[in-house]
Amino acid sequence: MNKIEHIGIAVKSVAQAGNIYEKLLHSKVYKTEEVGSEGVLTAFLQAGPNKIELLEATNRDSPIAKFIEKRGEGMHHIAFDVTDIVAEMSRLKAEGFVLLNDEPKQGADNKLVCFVHPKGTNGVLIELCQERG
Amino acid sequence: MNKIEHIGIAVKSVAQAGNIYEKLLHSKVYKTEEVGSEGVLTAFLQAGPNKIELLEATNRDSPIAKFIEKRGEGMHHIAFDVTDIVAEMSRLKAEGFVLLNDEPKQGADNKLVCFVHPKGTNGVLIELCQERG
Repeated sequence: MNKIEHIGIAVKSVAQAGNIYEKLLHSKVYKTEEVGSEGVLTAFLQAGPNKIELLEATNRDSPIAKFIEKRGEGMHHIAFDVTDIVAEMSRLKAEGFVLLNDEPKQGADNKLVCFVHPKGTNGVLIELCQERG
Repeated sequence: MNKIEHIGIAVKSVAQAGNIYEKLLHSKVYKTEEVGSEGVLTAFLQAGPNKIELLEATNRDSPIAKFIEKRGEGMHHIAFDVTDIVAEMSRLKAEGFVLLNDEPKQGADNKLVCFVHPKGTNGVLIELCQERG
């Protein structure tokens, strides 16, 4: 794992939270992007080599809508930057981690991503992400 | 904010979670430290420029014990590295954020720290930390 690529935060409104996190980080939202397949609207802010990804549900079946309904707004996942996502996925599978997708899938921010089941990581949803070439 | 210094994860056992996160990050726990004033035992792992801090309660009144009782194991806080914690604290106070301590206090890992109330940051407990000179 090269670094924390971003922390995903589930929020009710990307516009409202974007305003708060711009003040907190003293840094502007530099990109917003809708990921239709995940039912989310995202907004990104930079903090040095790392990012904050704000996530708003775009429909009621979105995992973000369910998360907020159950736990309220808050930290949703940690994403780690990897150089070779396929190799990392096999390494983690061999270590006994349960992956939520068998093949890398298209995520926000031009990334290939894979999620690791939080039951095997002390309740933390982990995302692997590799920049697409 | 220079970078994400670490992500704090509340766990029942630093020994058990340390083993899991060593496999996940392919990196060893390089330090464990007890912070008596906070009622926590901590363990640190590196992920490039960032760290994962595992937090186990050492008594029932520890904020970590209460967190786990309420929500289970999982992400507890995001810590940002700052150059001048006193200046950042005044900047955030002026922006309307509520600080949980008025003066920087001694945290784990030779840091001066200050926490920001999660009610003003979309449910996320934010820590500022400055390396002690």
